[in-house]
Amino acid sequence: MRQFQCDYIAGCHPNVLQALIDTNLEEVPGYGEDRFCTQAGDLIRRACRCDTASVHFFAGGTQANLTVISSILRPHQGVISATSGHVQAHETGAIEATGHKVLTVPAVDGKVLAEDVDALCRSYWDNDEKILLVQPGMLYISFPTETGTIYSLSELQALREVCDRYQLGFYIDGARLAYGLAASPDVALPDIARLADVFYIGGTKCGTLDCEALVIVNPLYQRDFTAMMRLRGALLSKARLGGVQFVALFENGLYEQIGRQAVQDAMAIRAAFLDAGLSMYGSSPTNQQFVIMSDEQLAFMNTKYRSEHCGKTTDGKHIVRFCSAWSTTREALAELLADIAQLKNLGSN
Amino acid sequence: MRQFQCDYIAGCHPNVLQALIDTNLEEVPGYGEDRFCTQAGDLIRRACRCDTASVHFFAGGTQANLTVISSILRPHQGVISATSGHVQAHETGAIEATGHKVLTVPAVDGKVLAEDVDALCRSYWDNDEKILLVQPGMLYISFPTETGTIYSLSELQALREVCDRYQLGFYIDGARLAYGLAASPDVALPDIARLADVFYIGGTKCGTLDCEALVIVNPLYQRDFTAMMRLRGALLSKARLGGVQFVALFENGLYEQIGRQAVQDAMAIRAAFLDAGLSMYGSSPTNQQFVIMSDEQLAFMNTKYRSEHCGKTTDGKHIVRFCSAWSTTREALAELLADIAQLKNLGSN
Amino acid sequence: MRQFQCDYIAGCHPNVLQALIDTNLEEVPGYGEDRFCTQAGDLIRRACRCDTASVHFFAGGTQANLTVISSILRPHQGVISATSGHVQAHETGAIEATGHKVLTVPAVDGKVLAEDVDALCRSYWDNDEKILLVQPGMLYISFPTETGTIYSLSELQALREVCDRYQLGFYIDGARLAYGLAASPDVALPDIARLADVFYIGGTKCGTLDCEALVIVNPLYQRDFTAMMRLRGALLSKARLGGVQFVALFENGLYEQIGRQAVQDAMAIRAAFLDAGLSMYGSSPTNQQFVIMSDEQLAFMNTKYRSEHCGKTTDGKHIVRFCSAWSTTREALAELLADIAQLKNLGSN
Amino acid sequence: MRQFQCDYIAGCHPNVLQALIDTNLEEVPGYGEDRFCTQAGDLIRRACRCDTASVHFFAGGTQANLTVISSILRPHQGVISATSGHVQAHETGAIEATGHKVLTVPAVDGKVLAEDVDALCRSYWDNDEKILLVQPGMLYISFPTETGTIYSLSELQALREVCDRYQLGFYIDGARLAYGLAASPDVALPDIARLADVFYIGGTKCGTLDCEALVIVNPLYQRDFTAMMRLRGALLSKARLGGVQFVALFENGLYEQIGRQAVQDAMAIRAAFLDAGLSMYGSSPTNQQFVIMSDEQLAFMNTKYRSEHCGKTTDGKHIVRFCSAWSTTREALAELLADIAQLKNLGSN
Repeated sequence: MRQFQCDYIAGCHPNVLQALIDTNLEEVPGYGEDRFCTQAGDLIRRACRCDTASVHFFAGGTQANLTVISSILRPHQGVISATSGHVQAHETGAIEATGHKVLTVPAVDGKVLAEDVDALCRSYWDNDEKILLVQPGMLYISFPTETGTIYSLSELQALREVCDRYQLGFYIDGARLAYGLAASPDVALPDIARLADVFYIGGTKCGTLDCEALVIVNPLYQRDFTAMMRLRGALLSKARLGGVQFVALFENGLYEQIGRQAVQDAMAIRAAFLDAGLSMYGSSPTNQQFVIMSDEQLAFMNTKYRSEHCGKTTDGKHIVRFCSAWSTTREALAELLADIAQLKNLGSN
Repeated sequence: MRQFQCDYIAGCHPNVLQALIDTNLEEVPGYGEDRFCTQAGDLIRRACRCDTASVHFFAGGTQANLTVISSILRPHQGVISATSGHVQAHETGAIEATGHKVLTVPAVDGKVLAEDVDALCRSYWDNDEKILLVQPGMLYISFPTETGTIYSLSELQALREVCDRYQLGFYIDGARLAYGLAASPDVALPDIARLADVFYIGGTKCGTLDCEALVIVNPLYQRDFTAMMRLRGALLSKARLGGVQFVALFENGLYEQIGRQAVQDAMAIRAAFLDAGLSMYGSSPTNQQFVIMSDEQLAFMNTKYRSEHCGKTTDGKHIVRFCSAWSTTREALAELLADIAQLKNLGSN
Repeated sequence: MRQFQCDYIAGCHPNVLQALIDTNLEEVPGYGEDRFCTQAGDLIRRACRCDTASVHFFAGGTQANLTVISSILRPHQGVISATSGHVQAHETGAIEATGHKVLTVPAVDGKVLAEDVDALCRSYWDNDEKILLVQPGMLYISFPTETGTIYSLSELQALREVCDRYQLGFYIDGARLAYGLAASPDVALPDIARLADVFYIGGTKCGTLDCEALVIVNPLYQRDFTAMMRLRGALLSKARLGGVQFVALFENGLYEQIGRQAVQDAMAIRAAFLDAGLSMYGSSPTNQQFVIMSDEQLAFMNTKYRSEHCGKTTDGKHIVRFCSAWSTTREALAELLADIAQLKNLGSN
Repeated sequence: MRQFQCDYIAGCHPNVLQALIDTNLEEVPGYGEDRFCTQAGDLIRRACRCDTASVHFFAGGTQANLTVISSILRPHQGVISATSGHVQAHETGAIEATGHKVLTVPAVDGKVLAEDVDALCRSYWDNDEKILLVQPGMLYISFPTETGTIYSLSELQALREVCDRYQLGFYIDGARLAYGLAASPDVALPDIARLADVFYIGGTKCGTLDCEALVIVNPLYQRDFTAMMRLRGALLSKARLGGVQFVALFENGLYEQIGRQAVQDAMAIRAAFLDAGLSMYGSSPTNQQFVIMSDEQLAFMNTKYRSEHCGKTTDGKHIVRFCSAWSTTREALAELLADIAQLKNLGSN
């Protein structure tokens, strides 16, 4: 069974694995005080064009999210997220478990609109009984979003402005950042680093084993952050593993290359579905493609491919996710494209 | 500089690395629903002689500890630990961050005595104003302890009995379990599994990358545990990595072999120190050896070896930790032993 | 300035005050172990027709809500509430501060529909990736609701059934219970006690100083509840005050009498507004009346009456709350009704 | 049965009750925005000689403690307390339930020594692995202490200095402040206000119904404090009750008068015990007196008086607490003193 349901079906990119092999028996201190972490931090700071950022490695995105959010907010504050945001919809209440409410705004093609954040904040600050309400303390978005869409540079700037207006910390979840940057016509890594206070560069879905690189740009949020990681159980004793893997991703442009290839593959998949007469769900230009299928079409694909079922349309058709990733092989892709072409003959129910 | 300060200075055991290499590109589902996790679970259940245990993989011990403890306790309950216990002394308040107090009992050669647990519980249950007190809800110990000592089978049985008497969950932190079992004359893995409700088999310090295998024996604590992991950010999307690594450790006796070799090395180090006329601090029979050194002796060792400084004795000498591990090489050990022998000539201050 | 903005503008009902005066210097033990708490508990159990309920006194509703909810839920569970529910909308994140998410369903005339609770639970239990979602663990409603509406007996029974279907604890916030029961054609206190697992009988808004009586019907939730109160800071050392006040409310039918009078007053206010040609917002049959006013009408009323501004209608008119209560005097009411009659002449903008 | 076991056996001081009666039906806004709260705040600020302090009313001390502590600390920080401190020993883990560890120092005659706080902080800041430790973030003491002792002015100044040295917030729990100030030769309310960042003036044990007045001196900790109260369920809708009661206590010197009388009574009780040949436990100069009794003596007293049993001495005698309070009547005191005199004849076992 070919697996296209998500982008974490394999271990890590061969170059990353080679780096782990090469350094495996080198003896270094723990908790991030090693040469690999230093080197990865330097490479990431350079790529972000931000000399003063601190870089920290996490074993997963939910852990990064809950640690960052609970370290930024005061007790009476909450984090703003789209209703479809990962922290709101897919983390089993991890943010609330640290004591904070997620304040939701609508998801518009997966994205948060600056005007909605502004309205939510204004309605808080204008309220005479605001002591009964959770104070908006920060903004969470992901780039790309849960539905694969990406923010334009001007959209990100508008979000930054609204954050400045209401003194919100601005945090970007970059679980699939490689794919978002590869698909974007105008947003590059230095833009993310310039506009966000904190963000993470996803590795788990973009070429590493379970590992993400968190970048804290705003010095205010750097203070005691390693202790914050420790108390959430997020401080890795062999943080070296993060260092080694992110050196491999960032020393020769591998991260960009992974992003480009997967986006190219995803565009081929999208085109194939459209050619076969199917409709796509949403406008994702990144590695996650959501297609609308009839029962018959889904049954046909299910014989050879594992995909993710994401619900139904109002007229009862299936919304199905196919993902490309760094691990997508040429053979698997070719086979998939050929089979998609056959859907044309199955009709749309 | 040779590194003997801890047991997490290298990546993972070569056999474990080979298993990661061999399986790297195999496509499997996430979150533990893969064949590696299944196989590792089966091997561990067999090694524990407990068919009904559930097995879960964590990226670190603090994360396992806080997830287990917060999932077992009700809001008004606390966990009993030695004053020197990891959850009390070295986790930056991770347990309290989940809302629970750590209730301390004295550490006697690093260990918790059943009679002290009994006294603490009795003083709670006999108190007329117990609604003002934190109710003891579970017991945490580590095997081996923070100072490398181990419990005898009868000591563990006495702890189990006191847990039964007061309805305490019994949790054993096995960060260095391989070394503890190798050193024990009478405690084997099935004993741990029979006596504890929950425990973890440490990988990070015993041969894997950052990875621990949690074993939940008591069915009461298995319910919804994966959700508990998720809300603490502890659920790994590529749990497969835990599966692959623990298969490598458990399919051919590698875990026992790692334990035996490191304990043998530690005993050689201990003997060398004693031969050189130094005193040891505590009675550790496992891979952590604590030696008492003069300024001069420590300075001599510091020229070639990184060790961990653990405080001072009342008469001003240094307490210094040297650890063996799965990663200790024959060359490093021979060199260390030769240099320890030279300490004799330096006198003891 | 006459105050009609809320129902907590005065101290306590004269009879309640007299009871406090009469018992003020009697010496009794603390923390609820006194004869007044016993007597109040007995009176409440009798009124509820439930011999086995436990009764506890709180200084406020938010405190009762957060203590009850955090004592019922396990860490991965959340509480279901209407979007307009007090715990969701007006408690500054108090529930989340105890670690739990509020799961929202729409408010239909202020009420939660059983079918919406069912749909939310079904979508959780049917989800293949439910470990990523917060598990619904209990249902919170208020009687009457935030907008003054009340549930019919059959609506409450339908909610009880859906709670049974999905093993949800059922908790009813009765901050204004006196007014809700007085207005209801078919729900009496024993029905509340029979259908809910836990509920509270509001005193603060219904005749006492800051004080509410929590009733725990389900024995499962009685266990260690006093300790739960203590750890939330909710255990009153002079719980006697709750006892004394609720004895006064329940020994001679005062609680019902307070409810009846305030509802009668509210109906007079409602009728007066309708007679004057204004429209009401919502269908509240209880002590809170929401009226729609033009700028001019509001300005006129503001010269003599303090009311609460609750937002605007889509066509820009004001939604304004007037409350009756146990403290509404005959003079104030007569004056208010006379002034409302004058609104007719002001037109509706 | 005469009740001397604690200082919260009666309602409130008659003058306080009269103030509640006089103002009972006056209509004022909720949540502290009323003239009584304003007036009480002004009186307290004047008594503290601190114009910029904010004043807030709580229904209990544990609630005040947990709200203050959780609003001051960052997630990785803990609060320093004596092992016998209320937050450590008698609040059922209320501080930990907000996510923070209590860091203990020894209690020396019930008190915290500046040198112990200094040592604890130094050992944190000097530790190379401080990221594994809870950072000391504030200091909690009570005045008087749990055992009735009081700090001298120079002791308080030394604590302030150590707080400044390590940037600790300094919080004083004044549950029995009236009695502490009355007993002190050199500490007055303005000293408390000058040296502490936050403290509370206990009412519950000193003349009010369940009510404490929190004073926040440091402007840094005033920010958003009312929201912090709300999220812990501590914001009283009828905060007026706090206002009214504290006006009564502070407008005519009633608080000082209550303190003086109760301390005088306690000294009479102490003298009577000593005259009868019994020994006192500790050196309390305030309203709590701890006496050491034989079985026979205790049995004799138990026939007429309820006292609190506080444990046993090493030679098996009873440590028993007798409290005076604002509610102690002349008759009860005379009777108690007469009966104590008879203990002489019972011998000391």
